[in-house]
Amino acid sequence: MDPRRLRDLLERLQRGETSVEQALALLRRLPYADLEMAKVDHHRPLRQGAPEVIFGEGKTSQQIAAIATELLGAGQNVLVTRLDEGKAAALAPALPGLCYVATARLGRLESSPPVRRPCAPVAVVAAGTSDIPVAEEAAETLGALGLEASRLYDVGVAGIHRLLAHAEELQGASAAIVVAGMEGALPSVVGGIVGCPVVAVPTSVGYGTALGGLTALFAMLTSCAPGVCVVNIDNGFGAAMCVHRMLPAAARQVQP
Amino acid sequence: MDPRRLRDLLERLQRGETSVEQALALLRRLPYADLEMAKVDHHRPLRQGAPEVIFGEGKTSQQIAAIATELLGAGQNVLVTRLDEGKAAALAPALPGLCYVATARLGRLESSPPVRRPCAPVAVVAAGTSDIPVAEEAAETLGALGLEASRLYDVGVAGIHRLLAHAEELQGASAAIVVAGMEGALPSVVGGIVGCPVVAVPTSVGYGTALGGLTALFAMLTSCAPGVCVVNIDNGFGAAMCVHRMLPAAARQVQP
Amino acid sequence: MDPRRLRDLLERLQRGETSVEQALALLRRLPYADLEMAKVDHHRPLRQGAPEVIFGEGKTSQQIAAIATELLGAGQNVLVTRLDEGKAAALAPALPGLCYVATARLGRLESSPPVRRPCAPVAVVAAGTSDIPVAEEAAETLGALGLEASRLYDVGVAGIHRLLAHAEELQGASAAIVVAGMEGALPSVVGGIVGCPVVAVPTSVGYGTALGGLTALFAMLTSCAPGVCVVNIDNGFGAAMCVHRMLPAAARQVQP
Amino acid sequence: MDPRRLRDLLERLQRGETSVEQALALLRRLPYADLEMAKVDHHRPLRQGAPEVIFGEGKTSQQIAAIATELLGAGQNVLVTRLDEGKAAALAPALPGLCYVATARLGRLESSPPVRRPCAPVAVVAAGTSDIPVAEEAAETLGALGLEASRLYDVGVAGIHRLLAHAEELQGASAAIVVAGMEGALPSVVGGIVGCPVVAVPTSVGYGTALGGLTALFAMLTSCAPGVCVVNIDNGFGAAMCVHRMLPAAARQVQP
Amino acid sequence: MDPRRLRDLLERLQRGETSVEQALALLRRLPYADLEMAKVDHHRPLRQGAPEVIFGEGKTSQQIAAIATELLGAGQNVLVTRLDEGKAAALAPALPGLCYVATARLGRLESSPPVRRPCAPVAVVAAGTSDIPVAEEAAETLGALGLEASRLYDVGVAGIHRLLAHAEELQGASAAIVVAGMEGALPSVVGGIVGCPVVAVPTSVGYGTALGGLTALFAMLTSCAPGVCVVNIDNGFGAAMCVHRMLPAAARQVQP
Amino acid sequence: MDPRRLRDLLERLQRGETSVEQALALLRRLPYADLEMAKVDHHRPLRQGAPEVIFGEGKTSQQIAAIATELLGAGQNVLVTRLDEGKAAALAPALPGLCYVATARLGRLESSPPVRRPCAPVAVVAAGTSDIPVAEEAAETLGALGLEASRLYDVGVAGIHRLLAHAEELQGASAAIVVAGMEGALPSVVGGIVGCPVVAVPTSVGYGTALGGLTALFAMLTSCAPGVCVVNIDNGFGAAMCVHRMLPAAARQVQP
Amino acid sequence: MDPRRLRDLLERLQRGETSVEQALALLRRLPYADLEMAKVDHHRPLRQGAPEVIFGEGKTSQQIAAIATELLGAGQNVLVTRLDEGKAAALAPALPGLCYVATARLGRLESSPPVRRPCAPVAVVAAGTSDIPVAEEAAETLGALGLEASRLYDVGVAGIHRLLAHAEELQGASAAIVVAGMEGALPSVVGGIVGCPVVAVPTSVGYGTALGGLTALFAMLTSCAPGVCVVNIDNGFGAAMCVHRMLPAAARQVQP
Amino acid sequence: MDPRRLRDLLERLQRGETSVEQALALLRRLPYADLEMAKVDHHRPLRQGAPEVIFGEGKTSQQIAAIATELLGAGQNVLVTRLDEGKAAALAPALPGLCYVATARLGRLESSPPVRRPCAPVAVVAAGTSDIPVAEEAAETLGALGLEASRLYDVGVAGIHRLLAHAEELQGASAAIVVAGMEGALPSVVGGIVGCPVVAVPTSVGYGTALGGLTALFAMLTSCAPGVCVVNIDNGFGAAMCVHRMLPAAARQVQP
Repeated sequence: MDPRRLRDLLERLQRGETSVEQALALLRRLPYADLEMAKVDHHRPLRQGAPEVIFGEGKTSQQIAAIATELLGAGQNVLVTRLDEGKAAALAPALPGLCYVATARLGRLESSPPVRRPCAPVAVVAAGTSDIPVAEEAAETLGALGLEASRLYDVGVAGIHRLLAHAEELQGASAAIVVAGMEGALPSVVGGIVGCPVVAVPTSVGYGTALGGLTALFAMLTSCAPGVCVVNIDNGFGAAMCVHRMLPAAARQVQP
Repeated sequence: MDPRRLRDLLERLQRGETSVEQALALLRRLPYADLEMAKVDHHRPLRQGAPEVIFGEGKTSQQIAAIATELLGAGQNVLVTRLDEGKAAALAPALPGLCYVATARLGRLESSPPVRRPCAPVAVVAAGTSDIPVAEEAAETLGALGLEASRLYDVGVAGIHRLLAHAEELQGASAAIVVAGMEGALPSVVGGIVGCPVVAVPTSVGYGTALGGLTALFAMLTSCAPGVCVVNIDNGFGAAMCVHRMLPAAARQVQP
Repeated sequence: MDPRRLRDLLERLQRGETSVEQALALLRRLPYADLEMAKVDHHRPLRQGAPEVIFGEGKTSQQIAAIATELLGAGQNVLVTRLDEGKAAALAPALPGLCYVATARLGRLESSPPVRRPCAPVAVVAAGTSDIPVAEEAAETLGALGLEASRLYDVGVAGIHRLLAHAEELQGASAAIVVAGMEGALPSVVGGIVGCPVVAVPTSVGYGTALGGLTALFAMLTSCAPGVCVVNIDNGFGAAMCVHRMLPAAARQVQP
Repeated sequence: MDPRRLRDLLERLQRGETSVEQALALLRRLPYADLEMAKVDHHRPLRQGAPEVIFGEGKTSQQIAAIATELLGAGQNVLVTRLDEGKAAALAPALPGLCYVATARLGRLESSPPVRRPCAPVAVVAAGTSDIPVAEEAAETLGALGLEASRLYDVGVAGIHRLLAHAEELQGASAAIVVAGMEGALPSVVGGIVGCPVVAVPTSVGYGTALGGLTALFAMLTSCAPGVCVVNIDNGFGAAMCVHRMLPAAARQVQP
Repeated sequence: MDPRRLRDLLERLQRGETSVEQALALLRRLPYADLEMAKVDHHRPLRQGAPEVIFGEGKTSQQIAAIATELLGAGQNVLVTRLDEGKAAALAPALPGLCYVATARLGRLESSPPVRRPCAPVAVVAAGTSDIPVAEEAAETLGALGLEASRLYDVGVAGIHRLLAHAEELQGASAAIVVAGMEGALPSVVGGIVGCPVVAVPTSVGYGTALGGLTALFAMLTSCAPGVCVVNIDNGFGAAMCVHRMLPAAARQVQP
Repeated sequence: MDPRRLRDLLERLQRGETSVEQALALLRRLPYADLEMAKVDHHRPLRQGAPEVIFGEGKTSQQIAAIATELLGAGQNVLVTRLDEGKAAALAPALPGLCYVATARLGRLESSPPVRRPCAPVAVVAAGTSDIPVAEEAAETLGALGLEASRLYDVGVAGIHRLLAHAEELQGASAAIVVAGMEGALPSVVGGIVGCPVVAVPTSVGYGTALGGLTALFAMLTSCAPGVCVVNIDNGFGAAMCVHRMLPAAARQVQP
Repeated sequence: MDPRRLRDLLERLQRGETSVEQALALLRRLPYADLEMAKVDHHRPLRQGAPEVIFGEGKTSQQIAAIATELLGAGQNVLVTRLDEGKAAALAPALPGLCYVATARLGRLESSPPVRRPCAPVAVVAAGTSDIPVAEEAAETLGALGLEASRLYDVGVAGIHRLLAHAEELQGASAAIVVAGMEGALPSVVGGIVGCPVVAVPTSVGYGTALGGLTALFAMLTSCAPGVCVVNIDNGFGAAMCVHRMLPAAARQVQP
Repeated sequence: MDPRRLRDLLERLQRGETSVEQALALLRRLPYADLEMAKVDHHRPLRQGAPEVIFGEGKTSQQIAAIATELLGAGQNVLVTRLDEGKAAALAPALPGLCYVATARLGRLESSPPVRRPCAPVAVVAAGTSDIPVAEEAAETLGALGLEASRLYDVGVAGIHRLLAHAEELQGASAAIVVAGMEGALPSVVGGIVGCPVVAVPTSVGYGTALGGLTALFAMLTSCAPGVCVVNIDNGFGAAMCVHRMLPAAARQVQP
């Protein structure tokens, strides 16, 4: 509930235009309505051209189509993550404009192009070719959020010179998302080269002691480069959302 | 090595003021000197009043005193983390100006006060009273980095109204560091209330299935609030460094 | 063996109507028969309209049909849990009255409707839509036990206002079953709002550090809300049985 | 905020006895005040002679004394859990009436004796002598909550006849708290004998594969006796609080 | 090499009937031949009507048929464990006499019936119906080893009276193999009732915290009944072999 | 209750020497008394010179002295396991005849020497010198049970010839207890050399990936030598009790 | 960049044949080019007839064919590891000379035969028949690297004499790769027999407590034979590469 | 037993200088004596100035002194690992020449200086200062084995330029021992720079998700640099022994 609407209500009560009973009934719902309002500030940047997100895993294509159609009707852009090829194909008739990105396993459907944020690109760095699907999930989500992604793939630590050849590019990024499986060492190295925020994403790539991504996760959390933060295994979407939270904060500050 | 110094070297060679052998000898050290230079941009914000950090655990008070004395001599501020009371007392004679913060288990020694950053305070939120040492490590580190900390303690999810009473304050923060042990649920709730960056810090508080902080860590990583990122167990320092990385990025953008 | 039957036996022996040998033969089976009797008090509430339960997983549809037919012949209601759609279809000809609830993966077949218990509804709360199958298993089992379920779904902690909007409803419940995967934080919040018994059910929903439900389980066990108890991962049936144990106890006390 | 106070406020506004600004200022604090009120129903049973609980671990005796003194001043009973012998001795001068129970590692200080609840005793069952401290923590907490504990110790499953000898006593209990370490099998057996609620408490007793209580915990969660629920390792206090939540529910129902 | 053959060799060398070179050539192979001989005593009881065992998992039906045919040609009985129905069908033409036991997932092919051992039956006890395949693997292997199995199924600890009804039968067994999944409590109870050897077999039955049999395994190893020993998860064959090792030892002693 | 006593009771009832009420009162205790009787057969071999066992860990020396004194008064031999040197010294005055074996961390106090069992020695094999305390716990317990132990220490698999040098001795044993930490490989090798029962005892010896004995435990359970069984980590006492269960079984069979 | 090329550049600058700007542009890329050069020494032995390796898992047959074709065009030998039968068949038309080794799950395609290294064969030892695929991956990779493999299979520790029969052969090897699943004991025994390097490879063979190879891995790491080193679970390729690193080192030393 | 001694024995038997009985008695010990002989080749390089190793942990200073004295009497050099300062001081009187290296926690006592091996130094690389004790254990052991260690410390991946500055030095080493805790990333980077053998040693340095060294261990095993091998956590001694095994192999090859 909007503070102005609350003031209106009280003034109407004062003026005798509403009864105490009616006011009480409205106020009963106040606590959480008020809270909802409190969240507007948070949701505003998202709603300015930003997509509503549907987690596709565990939903049928019918369910996804229904939710997406409703969102589109409200003028929202839509992002569907963890969307496999089969479901994407099944969605096509119901969502004709859906753009499916197979590598990233997601679909985008945009009523209006996302508003481009006024900041340097976000570096999306992947250690190996098997980490690319997770990196692409991050990069495509960034795109849907109005952030430019600068991809830098196959630069794992066993061939450290390949990464170092891009040091300058990395140092110009507004943030870095670093995706790695196996021993998960890449974020430590990147964190030592750049001063911008570094979000590490462990992947489930590897076998044996890779332990489905737990080894990379633990390695990233004990990183010897200070100030590196970590999201869940294979969670490219979460890393992009994490960067999204950082950059509005910056944007707010530039305004006088 | 500074690009200008490199250009000087080449010009002196061109002018015959230096020999090929001397140039080769200097260039042999180039790759890493150059890299060092590349890192200047990253180190600059740190060096503008920011402390050099000494991890105190596993070092003797003599070793800490020696390193700190050298840094102070170079005009650096010094921050010593994981410093227990005994060592702090032993350091006093050698480092007379050392300000020891027992709760945060760290010491600060500042030649000049840290330059205050032009941004809103960082909310440091702790679930229970046992989580306060880790929260204070974060808050004091923020202070040493020129960032204001707004402390909000004992607001765990089992008494959710205590947290909600501070919703407005949280929504005005430039970032939130959320510290919690046991079930580690607080970052999810905070992440749902605010739009700014949320860095979650699991603590080793709890017994039995708290598993020394692993349960809180895993819970935070699977948080249902998108865009929450996580650092290592009990790593309040790392969370502050993580926020430190975000806010310079913002600062860079405000400059025309 | 009924105490009255034991007394009969002894009196018949006293009166010479039976021999010592015959009495000995009967008494040899006494220990466990007596124990069986001891359990009657426990089973009685279950048998008053309550179903006999068949765990469907790992049983063929023929086996299930055979057991169910026998139980129905004895006038029992039947509840088949963990029953997949294929087996349910295969059961249809043999068990014509079977009511299959696909979401809850269970089948109910009731000779007579369960006797409705004289108590307030049991709140069945689910954090996300993926937790609904487990919540429904609990809700349907409650129904089969004569307990009314009040469903409250998709109220996870990242949007805490959705849960709080139902605080009053929760506070009127006779017990709450709280189902959550991922970080498993919901029971702590509910436990802080209500005074009634709270049974937490972790689910295997989530990926990466969700660890197949172990993270939610451990988080629930270290809950900072005192008096929350926990059942096995995905065990909606067990949570309902747990509530079932609580409410008969109440029922016994109301009788003079 | 009390609904009556809200109605008063609105009526005073209607009658012109207060201004819209004053009403707005009061209502700003409404959401959480209202929520607080909502919790009254939950806290009421606790406050009727029930203790306020201080978790003693990690607090100094001074801190404990200060909190306890404040609570006593407000007419509250006090329960201090996880209180070691040293701290208890140090507390004695400050809290003269403190009754310390060494086996249960807790202290009770009661302004007025807890109101006795009108229900059958709660059976507190312990598998081995090493499990007694946890069982006593549960039993003493029950006492402080106005519930009678019926202790039944050293009845582990390797001598099953010792347990069975008390079957009748168990079947008369209003609830059973079953405490066991090592293989944690006792709750399954008790759950098969009684129909009342069974709260299982794993203990950290045992070595090697006892894994500090995790084995007992997991065993209890996979119990083949349906409707057994579990609390954290060594959490006797939590088990008593769990039973405390159940029995008010019962009490509410007996009222016409 | 047989000691007598060694003596022969030395005597022939002494008598000049063989050369030093020939003796050296023979002795070069002595260490392991001698060792082989040492093992004869161990293999003898196995070879008296006992089967040679083929672990069927991971072998093709052709491979199994080839090995079995060779063994049969040498007059051996054959036991194929972990043999699924498909492979058993595929084996039928090549091994016409093969008796396939589907429940136990094994096949027996016996040139001559196993020699019956002169001892009481071995009790094979299973907690639930899902544990029966593992129990049957044990029971059938016992049969193939000349030992009689006395099956006692579905006697889990949640209905302890069912087990106790067979106490006498258990007490007459020469050994007990106790098979249980979930909380794995049955061996503790059986170990408290009988004095004979108890071999516990955890099974992978259960879900969630059953952890694929690890919980039952750990519970059995921390059993409070002394002298219970344990084999690997689902290893019914190993339990039977374990009993097989015990009973020959007995047999040796009866001979004067 | 003895069957003869039951027959007496019934005959006295038949003869009118007792009333139905008195018989009922006696029979009420029958189930468990009968069970107790059933256990006599199991306890008999233990009581023929066998010790009663006190687990010393977690008991004070006063408690141990009290229990031991009571047992001695009843003519029992006493074995105290997990008894550290301090407690043993403190026990000396109260238990003058106590023989403390420091290496095995146990004390023996025997009214009469244990009856020597008529069977070959039990081989107690230890891989390394650090495993000796656990091996000695097994060996001394065997001694207290009337079984001769044949010690074979420091024969780990990295120097396999040391073990093989004793192959003959091993092959003559009535059973083998094989104690090993680190990689726990010794039982597999011993199991391949001997045909007698092999009880494997993992120890907590080792560091890093020895994981406190879990690695040795798991290795022993997956042993490629069939029929090897395992007890808990460091549980030398349990291994001896396991052998104790085997050899009575043998003994029973030799009697006509 | 080659040092000679660097000297050329500087000399041309000195002679005025190039400008400072051109030199700067070239030197900008120096750090990593220089590093690349530094790696030549490392890559040289690989390139002398050694294959380029393609990890086949997670790549489509088209992707593999494209990479292989490019490498072959550059005159390289190609080794494709983790290549399943289906993909190998699909590759056949595109890579006509591909030699697929089904057991080792790899394909070799060699423009010129690998240069044979002047050293004794490498012993490849496998404990059981199920370990052979991993052993063959190692052996075939050795072959592709110009090293002779001497296979020794099915010599697990439960039949230690089979291994010992080959002691002499093992002692003549230039290195030993020891492959074992289950309890992973074989490398300890081999390490005690030979003085050459021993690389242990745990396999995922086994069930239950084999824990997918972790038990063998941990056992190998705690091996009581000093100087045994370990690679990842099932990583036969890595073991061969590890030996490959050792033997060039040797080769370098023989040159004067 | 030496083949020549065996031939002697047979010839003496042939000549009648010994009896069959005496020959049999000697040959009874042959299998393992022969095996011992087989091991001579392995032990020879160790005995040429190489130390006998005593693992000091868990041994008293008396025990260590006794073993060392015996070895010295036999002309052996002695190396005592895991020797804490207290024991080293206690050893001083008994072992006057003992050289104690506190950082490496070991003592060396050399009758004659180790024979220097004819190969390039072994690089011992440590990521952080806390890893130095483990690195020094490796370096000192190398010294005792006649191998020169080239130390390179504090070159962790977060400041990758520090490592790269020593690339040339690393590339000249005969082998590299790479010691790292926390995320354990250093061996991957080193493995990508050098072609020589790389032995990775995880350390228990770090907290939280460092998991006592398991994270570094697992990371090293999943290293993306092929051919890196790993030893147990904190096992600097083992790494040196591993290199020791490699270099004799090389030495053998240089001989014509």
